[in-house]
Amino acid sequence: MNSRLAYFSPGPEGQWFIRESRRIKGASLPSAGRLQISDLPPPDSVPWLLRGIRSNMRYTTAEEKGQLEAKQEGLGRSDSTLAVLIPIKKTEAWWDLSQNERREIFEEQSRHTTIGLEYLPAIARRLYHCRDLGPGEPFDFLTWFEFSPDHEQAFDELLLKLRSSREWEFVEREVEIRLKR
Amino acid sequence: MNSRLAYFSPGPEGQWFIRESRRIKGASLPSAGRLQISDLPPPDSVPWLLRGIRSNMRYTTAEEKGQLEAKQEGLGRSDSTLAVLIPIKKTEAWWDLSQNERREIFEEQSRHTTIGLEYLPAIARRLYHCRDLGPGEPFDFLTWFEFSPDHEQAFDELLLKLRSSREWEFVEREVEIRLKR
Repeated sequence: MNSRLAYFSPGPEGQWFIRESRRIKGASLPSAGRLQISDLPPPDSVPWLLRGIRSNMRYTTAEEKGQLEAKQEGLGRSDSTLAVLIPIKKTEAWWDLSQNERREIFEEQSRHTTIGLEYLPAIARRLYHCRDLGPGEPFDFLTWFEFSPDHEQAFDELLLKLRSSREWEFVEREVEIRLKR
Repeated sequence: MNSRLAYFSPGPEGQWFIRESRRIKGASLPSAGRLQISDLPPPDSVPWLLRGIRSNMRYTTAEEKGQLEAKQEGLGRSDSTLAVLIPIKKTEAWWDLSQNERREIFEEQSRHTTIGLEYLPAIARRLYHCRDLGPGEPFDFLTWFEFSPDHEQAFDELLLKLRSSREWEFVEREVEIRLKR
Protein backbone atom coordinates (compact mmCIF):
# COMPACT_ATOMS: atom_id res chain seq x y z
CA MET A 1 0.00 0.00 0.00
CA ASN A 2 2.66 2.48 -0.97
CA SER A 3 0.61 4.02 -3.74
CA ARG A 4 -1.41 7.15 -2.96
CA LEU A 5 -4.41 5.47 -4.63
CA ALA A 6 -6.38 2.74 -2.84
CA TYR A 7 -9.25 0.49 -3.95
CA PHE A 8 -11.85 -0.81 -1.48
CA SER A 9 -14.15 -3.64 -2.57
CA PRO A 10 -15.88 -6.73 -1.23
CA GLY A 11 -13.61 -9.71 -1.82
CA PRO A 12 -13.18 -13.18 -0.36
CA GLU A 13 -9.49 -12.58 0.37
CA GLY A 14 -10.11 -9.43 2.36
CA GLN A 15 -8.33 -9.02 5.68
CA TRP A 16 -11.30 -7.12 7.19
CA PHE A 17 -14.65 -8.75 7.96
CA ILE A 18 -17.68 -6.45 7.52
CA ARG A 19 -19.70 -6.45 10.76
CA GLU A 20 -22.28 -3.94 9.57
CA SER A 21 -22.95 -1.54 6.69
CA ARG A 22 -25.30 1.27 7.77
CA ARG A 23 -26.91 3.85 5.56
CA ILE A 24 -26.61 7.21 7.32
CA LYS A 25 -27.86 9.49 4.50
CA GLY A 26 -28.70 8.87 0.84
CA ALA A 27 -28.32 5.51 -0.88
CA SER A 28 -26.76 2.59 0.97
CA LEU A 29 -24.04 0.21 -0.20
CA PRO A 30 -24.92 -3.51 -0.31
CA SER A 31 -23.36 -5.37 2.60
CA ALA A 32 -20.74 -8.02 1.91
CA GLY A 33 -18.63 -10.57 3.74
CA ARG A 34 -15.14 -9.18 3.62
CA LEU A 35 -13.49 -5.96 2.50
CA GLN A 36 -10.38 -6.04 0.37
CA ILE A 37 -8.05 -3.05 0.20
CA SER A 38 -5.54 -2.89 -2.61
CA ASP A 39 -3.39 -0.51 -4.57
CA LEU A 40 -4.42 -2.29 -7.77
CA PRO A 41 -7.92 -2.30 -9.29
CA PRO A 42 -9.93 -5.43 -8.44
CA PRO A 43 -11.63 -7.59 -11.12
CA ASP A 44 -14.71 -6.08 -12.83
CA SER A 45 -16.94 -8.63 -11.13
CA VAL A 46 -16.82 -7.04 -7.65
CA PRO A 47 -20.28 -6.02 -6.32
CA TRP A 48 -19.08 -2.47 -5.65
CA LEU A 49 -15.88 -0.50 -5.74
CA LEU A 50 -14.72 2.60 -3.90
CA ARG A 51 -11.44 4.31 -4.62
CA GLY A 52 -9.66 7.23 -3.10
CA ILE A 53 -6.34 9.04 -3.20
CA ARG A 54 -4.25 10.44 -0.38
CA SER A 55 -3.56 14.10 -0.99
CA ASN A 56 -2.47 17.34 0.63
CA MET A 57 -4.41 18.80 3.55
CA ARG A 58 -7.07 21.33 2.57
CA TYR A 59 -8.14 23.09 5.79
CA THR A 60 -5.27 22.57 8.21
CA THR A 61 -3.10 25.40 9.51
CA ALA A 62 0.59 24.90 10.25
CA GLU A 63 -0.19 24.95 13.97
CA GLU A 64 -2.92 22.31 13.68
CA LYS A 65 -0.67 20.18 11.45
CA GLY A 66 2.02 20.25 14.14
CA GLN A 67 -0.48 19.20 16.81
CA LEU A 68 -1.78 16.33 14.66
CA GLU A 69 1.71 15.08 13.84
CA ALA A 70 2.73 15.21 17.51
CA LYS A 71 -0.27 13.16 18.72
CA GLN A 72 -1.20 10.73 15.97
CA GLU A 73 -0.04 7.14 15.54
CA GLY A 74 0.02 5.11 12.33
CA LEU A 75 -2.41 2.54 11.00
CA GLY A 76 -1.78 -1.15 11.58
CA ARG A 77 -1.18 -1.11 15.36
CA SER A 78 -1.50 -4.66 16.67
CA ASP A 79 -4.40 -3.81 19.02
CA SER A 80 -6.32 -1.90 16.33
CA THR A 81 -8.59 -4.82 15.48
CA LEU A 82 -11.60 -2.64 14.65
CA ALA A 83 -11.95 -0.30 11.69
CA VAL A 84 -14.67 1.86 10.17
CA LEU A 85 -14.83 3.07 6.58
CA ILE A 86 -17.03 6.13 6.02
CA PRO A 87 -17.67 7.25 2.44
CA ILE A 88 -19.14 10.76 2.23
CA LYS A 89 -20.49 12.95 -0.53
CA LYS A 90 -21.01 16.67 0.06
CA THR A 91 -23.54 18.92 -1.67
CA GLU A 92 -22.82 21.14 -4.67
CA ALA A 93 -23.47 24.10 -2.35
CA TRP A 94 -20.40 23.06 -0.33
CA TRP A 95 -18.15 22.91 -3.37
CA ASP A 96 -19.41 26.28 -4.60
CA LEU A 97 -18.25 27.98 -1.41
CA SER A 98 -14.94 29.83 -1.43
CA GLN A 99 -11.95 28.42 0.45
CA ASN A 100 -12.34 30.72 3.47
CA GLU A 101 -16.06 29.99 3.76
CA ARG A 102 -15.38 26.24 3.76
CA ARG A 103 -12.58 26.64 6.32
CA GLU A 104 -14.87 28.76 8.54
CA ILE A 105 -17.55 26.06 8.56
CA PHE A 106 -15.05 23.17 8.84
CA GLU A 107 -13.11 24.47 11.80
CA GLU A 108 -14.34 27.71 13.37
CA GLN A 109 -17.98 26.52 13.37
CA SER A 110 -17.65 22.72 13.40
CA ARG A 111 -14.26 22.20 15.12
CA HIS A 112 -13.51 19.25 12.86
CA THR A 113 -9.75 19.10 13.50
CA THR A 114 -10.14 20.02 17.18
CA ILE A 115 -12.58 17.13 17.73
CA GLY A 116 -10.33 14.68 15.85
CA LEU A 117 -7.37 15.79 18.00
CA GLU A 118 -9.27 15.00 21.23
CA TYR A 119 -9.44 11.35 20.19
CA LEU A 120 -5.78 10.96 19.19
CA PRO A 121 -3.86 8.73 19.37
CA ALA A 122 -6.68 6.24 20.22
CA ILE A 123 -8.64 6.74 16.99
CA ALA A 124 -6.20 6.61 14.05
CA ARG A 125 -7.52 8.10 10.84
CA ARG A 126 -6.61 8.27 7.14
CA LEU A 127 -8.41 10.41 4.60
CA TYR A 128 -8.75 9.52 0.93
CA HIS A 129 -10.10 12.01 -1.64
CA CYS A 130 -12.36 10.81 -4.47
CA ARG A 131 -14.01 13.87 -6.00
CA ASP A 132 -11.16 14.74 -8.36
CA LEU A 133 -10.40 11.18 -9.46
CA GLY A 134 -12.94 11.68 -12.22
CA PRO A 135 -16.33 13.19 -13.01
CA GLY A 136 -18.41 10.17 -11.98
CA GLU A 137 -17.26 9.22 -8.48
CA PRO A 138 -20.11 8.29 -6.11
CA PHE A 139 -18.41 9.88 -3.07
CA ASP A 140 -16.12 12.85 -2.36
CA PHE A 141 -14.12 11.30 0.51
CA LEU A 142 -13.45 7.99 2.19
CA THR A 143 -12.28 8.12 5.78
CA TRP A 144 -10.68 5.06 7.33
CA PHE A 145 -10.57 4.83 11.14
CA GLU A 146 -8.71 2.19 13.21
CA PHE A 147 -8.87 1.58 16.97
CA SER A 148 -8.90 -1.10 19.65
CA PRO A 149 -12.24 -2.50 20.96
CA ASP A 150 -11.59 -0.52 24.19
CA HIS A 151 -12.07 2.68 22.20
CA GLU A 152 -15.21 1.84 20.22
CA GLN A 153 -17.36 3.92 22.56
CA ALA A 154 -15.03 6.89 22.17
CA PHE A 155 -15.29 6.48 18.41
CA ASP A 156 -19.12 6.53 18.61
CA GLU A 157 -18.86 9.78 20.57
CA LEU A 158 -16.54 11.30 17.95
CA LEU A 159 -19.04 10.41 15.22
CA LEU A 160 -21.95 11.98 17.13
CA LYS A 161 -20.01 15.21 17.59
CA LEU A 162 -19.10 15.49 13.92
CA ARG A 163 -22.57 14.54 12.68
CA SER A 164 -24.24 17.21 14.80
CA SER A 165 -21.92 19.91 13.41
CA ARG A 166 -22.78 22.61 10.89
CA GLU A 167 -20.38 20.98 8.39
CA TRP A 168 -22.59 17.88 8.26
CA GLU A 169 -25.52 19.95 6.91
CA PHE A 170 -23.52 19.81 3.66
CA VAL A 171 -23.33 16.00 3.62
CA GLU A 172 -25.77 14.51 1.13
CA ARG A 173 -24.67 10.87 1.24
CA GLU A 174 -22.96 8.92 3.99
CA VAL A 175 -22.47 5.21 4.66
CA GLU A 176 -20.82 3.69 7.72
CA ILE A 177 -19.06 0.34 7.27
CA ARG A 178 -17.90 -1.27 10.53
CA LEU A 179 -15.14 -3.83 10.23
CA LYS A 180 -13.19 -6.28 12.33
CA ARG A 181 -9.84 -7.85 11.63
CA MET B 1 -17.13 19.84 -23.20
CA ASN B 2 -19.67 19.62 -20.38
CA SER B 3 -17.70 17.04 -18.44
CA ARG B 4 -15.41 18.29 -15.65
CA LEU B 5 -12.66 16.08 -17.12
CA ALA B 6 -10.79 17.13 -20.29
CA TYR B 7 -8.16 15.38 -22.41
CA PHE B 8 -5.51 17.33 -24.35
CA SER B 9 -3.49 15.51 -27.02
CA PRO B 10 -1.92 16.06 -30.42
CA GLY B 11 -4.43 15.05 -33.08
CA PRO B 12 -5.02 15.79 -36.75
CA GLU B 13 -8.62 16.91 -36.13
CA GLY B 14 -7.65 19.45 -33.49
CA GLN B 15 -9.17 22.92 -33.67
CA TRP B 16 -6.00 24.55 -32.28
CA PHE B 17 -2.73 24.71 -34.23
CA ILE B 18 0.43 24.51 -32.06
CA ARG B 19 2.63 27.53 -32.84
CA GLU B 20 5.31 26.71 -30.30
CA SER B 21 5.98 24.35 -27.42
CA ARG B 22 8.60 25.79 -25.03
CA ARG B 23 10.26 24.04 -22.14
CA ILE B 24 10.31 26.46 -19.21
CA LYS B 25 11.55 24.12 -16.48
CA GLY B 26 12.13 20.34 -16.37
CA ALA B 27 11.40 17.99 -19.25
CA SER B 28 9.74 19.33 -22.40
CA LEU B 29 6.78 17.88 -24.33
CA PRO B 30 7.39 16.96 -27.99
CA SER B 31 5.88 19.53 -30.33
CA ALA B 32 3.04 18.51 -32.61
CA GLY B 33 0.85 19.91 -35.36
CA ARG B 34 -2.55 20.36 -33.78
CA LEU B 35 -4.01 20.04 -30.31
CA GLN B 36 -7.23 18.16 -29.76
CA ILE B 37 -9.35 18.77 -26.67
CA SER B 38 -12.01 16.26 -25.79
CA ASP B 39 -14.10 14.99 -22.93
CA LEU B 40 -13.40 11.43 -24.05
CA PRO B 41 -10.01 9.69 -23.95
CA PRO B 42 -8.17 9.74 -27.30
CA PRO B 43 -6.79 6.55 -28.93
CA ASP B 44 -3.73 4.98 -27.27
CA SER B 45 -1.59 5.93 -30.27
CA VAL B 46 -1.39 9.67 -29.44
CA PRO B 47 2.21 10.92 -28.92
CA TRP B 48 1.32 12.38 -25.51
CA LEU B 49 -1.73 12.93 -23.39
CA LEU B 50 -2.54 15.45 -20.70
CA ARG B 51 -5.72 15.34 -18.68
CA GLY B 52 -7.22 17.56 -16.02
CA ILE B 53 -10.39 18.07 -14.05
CA ARG B 54 -12.20 21.27 -13.15
CA SER B 55 -12.67 21.47 -9.42
CA ASN B 56 -13.42 23.80 -6.51
CA MET B 57 -11.20 26.79 -5.80
CA ARG B 58 -8.42 26.17 -3.30
CA TYR B 59 -7.04 29.60 -2.33
CA THR B 60 -9.80 32.08 -3.17
CA THR B 61 -11.66 34.08 -0.54
CA ALA B 62 -15.35 34.96 -0.97
CA GLU B 63 -14.34 38.55 -1.75
CA GLU B 64 -11.82 37.52 -4.42
CA LYS B 65 -14.35 35.07 -5.90
CA GLY B 66 -16.87 37.92 -6.23
CA GLN B 67 -14.29 40.13 -7.97
CA LEU B 68 -13.33 37.34 -10.40
CA GLU B 69 -16.95 36.54 -11.25
CA ALA B 70 -17.75 40.23 -11.82
CA LYS B 71 -14.85 40.75 -14.25
CA GLN B 72 -14.25 37.49 -16.09
CA GLU B 73 -15.69 36.44 -19.44
CA GLY B 74 -16.08 32.91 -20.76
CA LEU B 75 -13.93 30.90 -23.13
CA GLY B 76 -14.80 30.76 -26.82
CA ARG B 77 -15.15 34.49 -27.54
CA SER B 78 -14.99 35.03 -31.30
CA ASP B 79 -11.91 37.28 -31.13
CA SER B 80 -10.01 34.90 -28.82
CA THR B 81 -8.01 33.32 -31.60
CA LEU B 82 -4.92 32.72 -29.47
CA ALA B 83 -4.59 30.27 -26.61
CA VAL B 84 -1.81 29.04 -24.33
CA LEU B 85 -1.78 25.78 -22.41
CA ILE B 86 0.59 25.69 -19.43
CA PRO B 87 1.12 22.37 -17.64
CA ILE B 88 2.82 22.79 -14.26
CA LYS B 89 4.15 20.45 -11.60
CA LYS B 90 4.96 21.76 -8.15
CA THR B 91 7.53 20.34 -5.72
CA GLU B 92 6.83 17.90 -2.88
CA ALA B 93 7.82 20.75 -0.53
CA TRP B 94 4.80 22.72 -1.80
CA TRP B 95 2.37 19.88 -1.17
CA ASP B 96 3.79 19.29 2.31
CA LEU B 97 2.96 22.83 3.37
CA SER B 98 -0.20 23.43 5.38
CA GLN B 99 -3.18 25.20 3.78
CA ASN B 100 -2.46 28.59 5.38
CA GLU B 101 1.22 28.45 4.38
CA ARG B 102 0.27 27.73 0.75
CA ARG B 103 -2.34 30.51 0.77
CA GLU B 104 0.22 32.93 2.26
CA ILE B 105 2.70 32.21 -0.55
CA PHE B 106 0.03 32.08 -3.28
CA GLU B 107 -1.64 35.39 -2.51
CA GLU B 108 -0.10 37.48 0.25
CA GLN B 109 3.45 36.97 -1.12
CA SER B 110 2.85 36.25 -4.82
CA ARG B 111 -0.47 38.06 -5.49
CA HIS B 112 -1.55 35.31 -7.86
CA THR B 113 -5.28 36.19 -7.90
CA THR B 114 -4.60 39.92 -7.81
CA ILE B 115 -2.34 39.69 -10.87
CA GLY B 116 -4.88 37.54 -12.75
CA LEU B 117 -7.61 40.08 -11.95
CA GLU B 118 -5.59 42.93 -13.50
CA TYR B 119 -5.74 41.15 -16.86
CA LEU B 120 -9.47 40.37 -16.81
CA PRO B 121 -11.53 40.22 -18.91
CA ALA B 122 -8.87 40.33 -21.69
CA ILE B 123 -7.06 37.14 -20.63
CA ALA B 124 -9.67 34.42 -20.02
CA ARG B 125 -8.45 31.49 -17.96
CA ARG B 126 -9.56 28.01 -16.98
CA LEU B 127 -7.76 25.82 -14.47
CA TYR B 128 -7.71 22.03 -14.59
CA HIS B 129 -6.34 19.94 -11.70
CA CYS B 130 -4.33 16.77 -12.41
CA ARG B 131 -2.57 15.78 -9.19
CA ASP B 132 -5.47 13.85 -7.68
CA LEU B 133 -6.56 12.11 -10.88
CA GLY B 134 -4.15 9.33 -9.97
CA PRO B 135 -0.72 8.62 -8.54
CA GLY B 136 1.18 8.85 -11.82
CA GLU B 137 0.18 12.15 -13.40
CA PRO B 138 3.10 14.07 -14.98
CA PHE B 139 1.69 17.48 -13.96
CA ASP B 140 -0.32 18.96 -11.08
CA PHE B 141 -2.25 21.59 -13.07
CA LEU B 142 -3.05 22.60 -16.62
CA THR B 143 -3.99 26.22 -17.17
CA TRP B 144 -5.73 27.22 -20.38
CA PHE B 145 -5.63 30.90 -21.40
CA GLU B 146 -7.54 32.52 -24.29
CA PHE B 147 -7.21 36.05 -25.68
CA SER B 148 -7.19 38.11 -28.85
CA PRO B 149 -3.90 38.86 -30.70
CA ASP B 150 -4.21 42.45 -29.39
CA HIS B 151 -3.61 41.13 -25.88
CA GLU B 152 -0.68 38.80 -26.47
CA GLN B 153 1.75 41.35 -25.07
CA ALA B 154 -0.39 41.75 -21.95
CA PHE B 155 -0.38 37.98 -21.59
CA ASP B 156 3.45 37.91 -21.79
CA GLU B 157 3.55 40.50 -19.01
CA LEU B 158 1.19 38.44 -16.86
CA LEU B 159 3.45 35.40 -17.29
CA LEU B 160 6.57 37.36 -16.33
CA LYS B 161 4.90 38.62 -13.16
CA LEU B 162 3.80 35.17 -12.06
CA ARG B 163 7.11 33.50 -12.93
CA SER B 164 9.08 35.99 -10.87
CA SER B 165 6.90 35.36 -7.80
CA ARG B 166 7.80 33.38 -4.69
CA GLU B 167 5.15 30.81 -5.62
CA TRP B 168 7.12 29.88 -8.76
CA GLU B 169 10.09 28.77 -6.62
CA PHE B 170 7.91 25.71 -5.96
CA VAL B 171 7.45 24.92 -9.67
CA GLU B 172 9.64 22.00 -10.74
CA ARG B 173 8.27 21.44 -14.24
CA GLU B 174 6.59 23.85 -16.64
CA VAL B 175 5.88 23.77 -20.36
CA GLU B 176 4.31 26.57 -22.40
CA ILE B 177 2.28 25.59 -25.45
CA ARG B 178 1.22 28.52 -27.66
CA LEU B 179 -1.75 27.90 -29.93
CA LYS B 180 -3.73 29.59 -32.65
CA ARG B 181 -7.23 28.85 -33.85
